[in-house]
Amino acid sequence: MEVYIEPIGRLINEFSKLPGVGKKTAQRYAYKVIDMTETQAQEFAAAILNAKKKVKYCKICGNFSEEEVCPVCKARDGRVICVVKEPKDVIALEKLHEYRGVYHVLHGVINPMEGVGPNDIRIRELLARIGEGGVDEVILATNPDVEGDATALYIAKLVKPLGVKVTRLSRGIPIGSEIEYTDDVTLSRAFIERKEM
Amino acid sequence: MEVYIEPIGRLINEFSKLPGVGKKTAQRYAYKVIDMTETQAQEFAAAILNAKKKVKYCKICGNFSEEEVCPVCKARDGRVICVVKEPKDVIALEKLHEYRGVYHVLHGVINPMEGVGPNDIRIRELLARIGEGGVDEVILATNPDVEGDATALYIAKLVKPLGVKVTRLSRGIPIGSEIEYTDDVTLSRAFIERKEM
Repeated sequence: MEVYIEPIGRLINEFSKLPGVGKKTAQRYAYKVIDMTETQAQEFAAAILNAKKKVKYCKICGNFSEEEVCPVCKARDGRVICVVKEPKDVIALEKLHEYRGVYHVLHGVINPMEGVGPNDIRIRELLARIGEGGVDEVILATNPDVEGDATALYIAKLVKPLGVKVTRLSRGIPIGSEIEYTDDVTLSRAFIERKEM
Repeated sequence: MEVYIEPIGRLINEFSKLPGVGKKTAQRYAYKVIDMTETQAQEFAAAILNAKKKVKYCKICGNFSEEEVCPVCKARDGRVICVVKEPKDVIALEKLHEYRGVYHVLHGVINPMEGVGPNDIRIRELLARIGEGGVDEVILATNPDVEGDATALYIAKLVKPLGVKVTRLSRGIPIGSEIEYTDDVTLSRAFIERKEM
């Protein structure tokens, strides 16, 4: 006999496809669904279909959008473009309520090990945006890791000749942490990128 | 501006209702859904609705079932009934492929602190099953915690007078662990319930 009856097994299988969800967690989720009222389960299913149907990508910045052009691209000052790897990076930066410019979502970083080249991410689209003029600064906000650094370097080399200022988010010891407990790579980077006071 | 566009915010909200899922995890799940193909998202939503619609409770043992009477109650020897708190306990025991009797799912344990009394869980139904005759043994497999122990004790007191053998899963030091690292409560319990060799 199968351990799970078919409808439960099938739902567990679906939940297992979510990132970081193993069999045990998927089972807990499935049981939660069975515990829901009919209406709650319907709302859950509808939210999945609705998100899949309504969420498109902004044709300018590549971020998630319900419309052709996202509210950020529509309303904000386009002179500064912040380049990020993924839509979730936009969320993280927007939460600060500090940056008032626009974004450009690459949807990936250059990663030769995984076969991702410059043409597989939205670099061409970035250059096209800059080519239209009116851009003063490009802030490179890819992750401070090997791929993020390589991607930033690659973009910087292409953008600088266009006469646009290119900056990169500073790397160093996280605020509130202690030098003693900072990892070697970060600490050495903080030394190299030390700033004059 | 809202941080998330509406369809994403709504989906994150739905995922947040799953047990142990915070905003960050819900966001990861939502992004995964947006990354799915149309078909994959439809299958996910359909699995939720399907599970909610098809999963009922077996009218005998109370475990999840697609039919009125579950395959276990239909096929197995009814002389031994193993009493558990929840359907997931049945899964854990079935995985051992050792027990060949039937189950009785209480759907909870007695917990006065949370207002759960004996009449709020399926104790009456258990007594009715035993009352129909043919039951030789009741194995109490509630969790080895305060509520599980109290519930087991309560049931034992009711069942024993009916001339049915009542047993409880043994508690003690987990196999493969070390005495040095066993928590005090378990260790003291293992002393009290020590067995003659």
